[in-house]
Amino acid sequence: MAATIEANDSGDLGAAATSVLSGQAAMQAWQEGLYKDLHRHPELGHHEVRTASVAAEALRGFGFEVHEKIGTTGVVGVLRNGDGPTVLMRADMDALPMAEKTGLDYASTETTTDDSGAGTAVMHACGHDIHVACLLGAAKLFAGAMDAWQGTFVALFQPAEEVATGATAMVDGGVTKLVPKPDVALAQHVLAFPSGRVGVRPGPFLSGADSMRVTVYGRGSHGSMPQLSVDPVVLAAMIVVRLQAVVAREIAPDEFAVLTVGRIAGGSKSNIISDHAVLELNIRSYSEQTRATLLAAIERVVRGECAASGSPQEPEFEIYDHFPLTDNDADATARVDAAFRAHFGGDAFTIDRQSASEDFSEIPRAFGVPYVYWGIGGTDPEVYAAAEAAGTVSTTIPANHSPQFAPVIEPTLRAGTAVVAALAWLAGPSGV
Amino acid sequence: MAATIEANDSGDLGAAATSVLSGQAAMQAWQEGLYKDLHRHPELGHHEVRTASVAAEALRGFGFEVHEKIGTTGVVGVLRNGDGPTVLMRADMDALPMAEKTGLDYASTETTTDDSGAGTAVMHACGHDIHVACLLGAAKLFAGAMDAWQGTFVALFQPAEEVATGATAMVDGGVTKLVPKPDVALAQHVLAFPSGRVGVRPGPFLSGADSMRVTVYGRGSHGSMPQLSVDPVVLAAMIVVRLQAVVAREIAPDEFAVLTVGRIAGGSKSNIISDHAVLELNIRSYSEQTRATLLAAIERVVRGECAASGSPQEPEFEIYDHFPLTDNDADATARVDAAFRAHFGGDAFTIDRQSASEDFSEIPRAFGVPYVYWGIGGTDPEVYAAAEAAGTVSTTIPANHSPQFAPVIEPTLRAGTAVVAALAWLAGPSGV
Amino acid sequence: MAATIEANDSGDLGAAATSVLSGQAAMQAWQEGLYKDLHRHPELGHHEVRTASVAAEALRGFGFEVHEKIGTTGVVGVLRNGDGPTVLMRADMDALPMAEKTGLDYASTETTTDDSGAGTAVMHACGHDIHVACLLGAAKLFAGAMDAWQGTFVALFQPAEEVATGATAMVDGGVTKLVPKPDVALAQHVLAFPSGRVGVRPGPFLSGADSMRVTVYGRGSHGSMPQLSVDPVVLAAMIVVRLQAVVAREIAPDEFAVLTVGRIAGGSKSNIISDHAVLELNIRSYSEQTRATLLAAIERVVRGECAASGSPQEPEFEIYDHFPLTDNDADATARVDAAFRAHFGGDAFTIDRQSASEDFSEIPRAFGVPYVYWGIGGTDPEVYAAAEAAGTVSTTIPANHSPQFAPVIEPTLRAGTAVVAALAWLAGPSGV
Amino acid sequence: MAATIEANDSGDLGAAATSVLSGQAAMQAWQEGLYKDLHRHPELGHHEVRTASVAAEALRGFGFEVHEKIGTTGVVGVLRNGDGPTVLMRADMDALPMAEKTGLDYASTETTTDDSGAGTAVMHACGHDIHVACLLGAAKLFAGAMDAWQGTFVALFQPAEEVATGATAMVDGGVTKLVPKPDVALAQHVLAFPSGRVGVRPGPFLSGADSMRVTVYGRGSHGSMPQLSVDPVVLAAMIVVRLQAVVAREIAPDEFAVLTVGRIAGGSKSNIISDHAVLELNIRSYSEQTRATLLAAIERVVRGECAASGSPQEPEFEIYDHFPLTDNDADATARVDAAFRAHFGGDAFTIDRQSASEDFSEIPRAFGVPYVYWGIGGTDPEVYAAAEAAGTVSTTIPANHSPQFAPVIEPTLRAGTAVVAALAWLAGPSGV
Repeated sequence: MAATIEANDSGDLGAAATSVLSGQAAMQAWQEGLYKDLHRHPELGHHEVRTASVAAEALRGFGFEVHEKIGTTGVVGVLRNGDGPTVLMRADMDALPMAEKTGLDYASTETTTDDSGAGTAVMHACGHDIHVACLLGAAKLFAGAMDAWQGTFVALFQPAEEVATGATAMVDGGVTKLVPKPDVALAQHVLAFPSGRVGVRPGPFLSGADSMRVTVYGRGSHGSMPQLSVDPVVLAAMIVVRLQAVVAREIAPDEFAVLTVGRIAGGSKSNIISDHAVLELNIRSYSEQTRATLLAAIERVVRGECAASGSPQEPEFEIYDHFPLTDNDADATARVDAAFRAHFGGDAFTIDRQSASEDFSEIPRAFGVPYVYWGIGGTDPEVYAAAEAAGTVSTTIPANHSPQFAPVIEPTLRAGTAVVAALAWLAGPSGV
Repeated sequence: MAATIEANDSGDLGAAATSVLSGQAAMQAWQEGLYKDLHRHPELGHHEVRTASVAAEALRGFGFEVHEKIGTTGVVGVLRNGDGPTVLMRADMDALPMAEKTGLDYASTETTTDDSGAGTAVMHACGHDIHVACLLGAAKLFAGAMDAWQGTFVALFQPAEEVATGATAMVDGGVTKLVPKPDVALAQHVLAFPSGRVGVRPGPFLSGADSMRVTVYGRGSHGSMPQLSVDPVVLAAMIVVRLQAVVAREIAPDEFAVLTVGRIAGGSKSNIISDHAVLELNIRSYSEQTRATLLAAIERVVRGECAASGSPQEPEFEIYDHFPLTDNDADATARVDAAFRAHFGGDAFTIDRQSASEDFSEIPRAFGVPYVYWGIGGTDPEVYAAAEAAGTVSTTIPANHSPQFAPVIEPTLRAGTAVVAALAWLAGPSGV
Repeated sequence: MAATIEANDSGDLGAAATSVLSGQAAMQAWQEGLYKDLHRHPELGHHEVRTASVAAEALRGFGFEVHEKIGTTGVVGVLRNGDGPTVLMRADMDALPMAEKTGLDYASTETTTDDSGAGTAVMHACGHDIHVACLLGAAKLFAGAMDAWQGTFVALFQPAEEVATGATAMVDGGVTKLVPKPDVALAQHVLAFPSGRVGVRPGPFLSGADSMRVTVYGRGSHGSMPQLSVDPVVLAAMIVVRLQAVVAREIAPDEFAVLTVGRIAGGSKSNIISDHAVLELNIRSYSEQTRATLLAAIERVVRGECAASGSPQEPEFEIYDHFPLTDNDADATARVDAAFRAHFGGDAFTIDRQSASEDFSEIPRAFGVPYVYWGIGGTDPEVYAAAEAAGTVSTTIPANHSPQFAPVIEPTLRAGTAVVAALAWLAGPSGV
Repeated sequence: MAATIEANDSGDLGAAATSVLSGQAAMQAWQEGLYKDLHRHPELGHHEVRTASVAAEALRGFGFEVHEKIGTTGVVGVLRNGDGPTVLMRADMDALPMAEKTGLDYASTETTTDDSGAGTAVMHACGHDIHVACLLGAAKLFAGAMDAWQGTFVALFQPAEEVATGATAMVDGGVTKLVPKPDVALAQHVLAFPSGRVGVRPGPFLSGADSMRVTVYGRGSHGSMPQLSVDPVVLAAMIVVRLQAVVAREIAPDEFAVLTVGRIAGGSKSNIISDHAVLELNIRSYSEQTRATLLAAIERVVRGECAASGSPQEPEFEIYDHFPLTDNDADATARVDAAFRAHFGGDAFTIDRQSASEDFSEIPRAFGVPYVYWGIGGTDPEVYAAAEAAGTVSTTIPANHSPQFAPVIEPTLRAGTAVVAALAWLAGPSGV
């Protein structure tokens, strides 16, 4: 059977969703234990060996067909249940190299050795442990209510979202060949708004972001003989100055665009003129066209300034940390939004665009399918309300990437699991 | 006979010069009348009809072979006197479009119609009338003492020095074919130092100067829609900023170079983005190599900045008011300097480089001969000494191009005539 | 009686509006004649003597209490009709100094002498004649249906909108003391979209705009002696470059802001360093806060750059052509929008923000009351549809300020009158 | 007896000098051994313990009154010989942290621990070992010919010239109170021109140089939220750009000045806006007035740009590595030059200004006495001549601070000793 769009109007999700969600109460203790275990044992990107193992083992236990080590540590489980839509839900698994300061009794004490061999404290400061626990919870619910729905559910556990390489690694690792092509792909993120609330919006939701390293070349000389040099510090400074005119003059005044030169480095000593300088740029936008305009303008400006300086060597441009634009499909989002409002009532809302970035969309892009990405609240609602009343939300509520970031377990897990279980097939084509 | 270089060492100019100069006292009244007449009747560049006629008539009266209307109003007289060196002396004839404020009883009251048809007060504010009077005086002395010297004396009266086109006009008008090739070419300028003194220096004396008009193109738009434009005001501003690095970084720190953007003009209204902007540059140096470096750097910077802006049309470069470097020949200058010191004693000095510019050197350049250019004082020595004692020279002594510029007639004419008559042949090759 | 908000839901404007509008057909010939007469006789800002007289005479004929010569040529008529809301509707009267090229048989042939005494062709190229004809039509309809409504209708005819001084002139002329304080103020503008359509939006609709003239001071010198100068061309260029960082760095990336340097002018000749330079800036935003940020940043940048240059004299800032932000009241706009949709159905739409600017809001601001500003179409719908199909709207449809701008008379007048007559009291508080 | 200035005219140094120099041949083997020992054992600045000990021991052996550990490792010896002038000669002792690549059999193999505890190869790559060996040689000659001269000879061995702190350290250490005030102070440097030649010039010889670290402050933010930041990278870039106009516009075109930004560093990551940036400047000039102009302009520009950026914290300026201008006294230099020409004939020349810098002049400045600094050649004359013929001097002759820098021992030592011994008293007042 397929849930239908009428759910939106009648104010409930229909018998299917109700049936699937009926198992939620019984699994709460299991899910909370799972979450605390994950939180205690965070792992850095591409090193999520333990987390991946937990996910794979659980999926197998639920009866999923499981594939492991996709890309590096990626896991995907497939649960086939007759004719019907195929829906893919993704959770990211990686943590951050930070020392946890939450004071929780299940706080991380892990110190993992990073790629460079140095010891690094690790923490789930971005809530990916919530994502994993919710997706495993939803997988358990679907597996426990096979009579209530039809189709195929794909649970995907991605490494290394924080460094923007995990989604691409799974694509390069062949995930699109391992699982059936979904009708829609879904993902969610826990954010610093009240737990129990859910927010989505159609169209651009998370900005696309690129980091770009630009190396420009001069000709070195002693500091007392500038006439023998092509001064790369002057060249780099002119580029920084010139780049300000890109956003100011080349982007329409009501179009979102950011072009930040986060780092400039040229020369090593006051009296030596160096032979190169490096700029590191951050580029953000909510449309591919704006991104293209920015990239073209940067290259044009850099090459023009190199020509103006008489630079003896072509500049080099290296894009790294590419986060694609997260641009929710309008139709699928409308269905998700309707289901949110049906299930959560006033706790469902249209969320603002977020300046953060994600690599999730590389996966649906590789499949060629629509996707929806949304936010779930993680902050204690009473704490949030008090902060809001005091006007101190921005200063007292720990946000993602804070060492104090600590989502309340409930109703965060319950809501985050419900949205998956209830929406997974609602989000499919024709009301799936 | 030829004066010899020994004159320099023995401390006098020898019998030849003494004999030539012996006629000076007798012609003083004539020469002062001539000067006052020229001062009363100034003419703008290429319009020196009356002045040229005065010069030509006088030369003919002295027995010179005379050519007129060379270029526009140029005059040249040749006095052949047997075997010996050929020496060319040039005086410039043109005045400036200024209202005279000297209060002299022989002040200009001329109002000439300029090329655009507007009435313009005209004034000999740069002392070219002194130059003409001195050269005619010298011509008269040479003509009156044919027994005392041998060789050929060429007296050249040039139009339009102030606008940098008179020398080239005479060259284009064929002056090099009308007169014998000189062994050396000479010219002098009255300056704001004490009358009776003379100063010369070897090598670069007056800077080379060019004016350049640069037009850069953008794309126009309404001021509220910069994204549709290529903003030429931003482009022009970047060029101005960028050009500062040319002198600061590309010219050796002990090399003289000036690059001034004297004029910038872009746009007509606050809320319209224009489609072009204009820069007017002034470029000065004491060497051809520095000039070439500056010109190449300007073109490179402008083209680079146009590329950086995405300018839709190639920039345009127009050089106007080109003044060549005045670079005194070392050997000829040594002879002139020695003769100065022999004749003037302590009133002869090594003058500093001047930031002014001249087109005289186009003439010797066309002939392919060495040249010497020097300065003669025009300020009342007592007035100058008082100002020097008071530390007010720069504020109280009217300089060239001031509406109060008024050289004292004597000893300015006497000295300015003596240097020509006495030095003309001394400056030739092998002590001529 | 008061029209009620139910009109919005039931899909019609109710009996009151229907009754008022019932007189529309009968007055069409009169209104078109009035419009053609106004179009033939355009007058520049503050010189709308004939137009004001036409309006005042008509209002008196309809039974309004009339005040004239407010500010310069402002007219206001008051029609009192018992208890009920007070609604003010404004039309602007002035034309533009342009030669009309529409080819209409009622085209302007006026040549008015402007303030400087020069002859100037004048044209209603911005459609203010449409505004006047619609407001007089609405006044006639209200006056002819006194039984159908209750309250007070204020018809205000403003001079000099194009030069941003007419609204302020009427405020300074005491308009707020002459007429009762309205509950809401309304205004409309004919735009280049299909005639018969109407568009409105809540919140910022037209940008606030300011022009600012900045004069910065240097110290003059000859172009060859930069060390004696403070170069104002370099200073002005640095300011232009620096200002690019204001929009790029100081305005949030999703906030609308424009800062254009439309004009730069410094120096007169290549070889003279001038003693000042002038910049003319255009500043646009959709919020007072953004405007304040821009103005503060400009002053900070200019003063900082003057300090960096060692400028010998304080910079000067002169704001001219100040257009306030046009920021529609949310509640009043909701009522207007509902009435639009009730009356016009699919021809009512939510219009995009416009980059144009207006001074109308100075009037409600002086009264301290909410306001709504909207657009009505003026282009022949068939011509527009064809251009849209061909993708040539932007190139073939004459927009405001074009010498070809020629709104089709109908249905432009009919719609523009209906919106006023039908909405005037609907826009008041509590569904007025 | 006092040598007299006639020496200059008669073409020889007189009996005194001849007598002093007569001991030179006999001590050659000792001096070469001394030099090789010093070369083998280089020491970094303020760590010249062994070198200082060698010098002190030798001086004591020659009969000098010796003071040690002045500043850090400074040594001074005084040889009193009756009435007559007092002449101070300085040699610097420190080496550089470089690995020697000369291949000499007496090459350094020292690895000294530097201040930070790291091991560092050390090399006499600037020839200070030559200076020490020559000064000790001269001391030996003076001591061995006490009958030939009268007065007081002061031999000063200075630490830490390379880091510009040794001369000041000796002054702070009280050297001016330990030794009699000299009539003149002398110093020399071996340079990459042919050994056996000596060059001096009056007036500015070595440029004054300062290094300055400028720290400017912004306000940090995430790279996606520039509006919350004051961007220090933009600020630093504007300063670099702005500083170009200092040399281009504020220094007279014929005045030597260098302002290099050798290092710029701001930010650590592309997507983080940092809160500060650092610039390291190098400033060079040949006059105190130009230096003052540059320093004042830098401070003015930095403060102005910080104001333009709205920087939240005052910038910081730190001058380090201050090298004073080396400005030879005219009278003393004339005497030295005459003595050079008398003794060396065609091997004495007027040397060009050098862009290098020295701290020697702090010592005569502390005494308040005139000084002369000159250069002696160190390159094998045949090698140099061949390179000159091939046009490869700048590419094939190792210069100071090259790991291949290896002065030929002779005639470098002989000449460098002769100039001291012969000139020491010639350089004194009244032909001393």
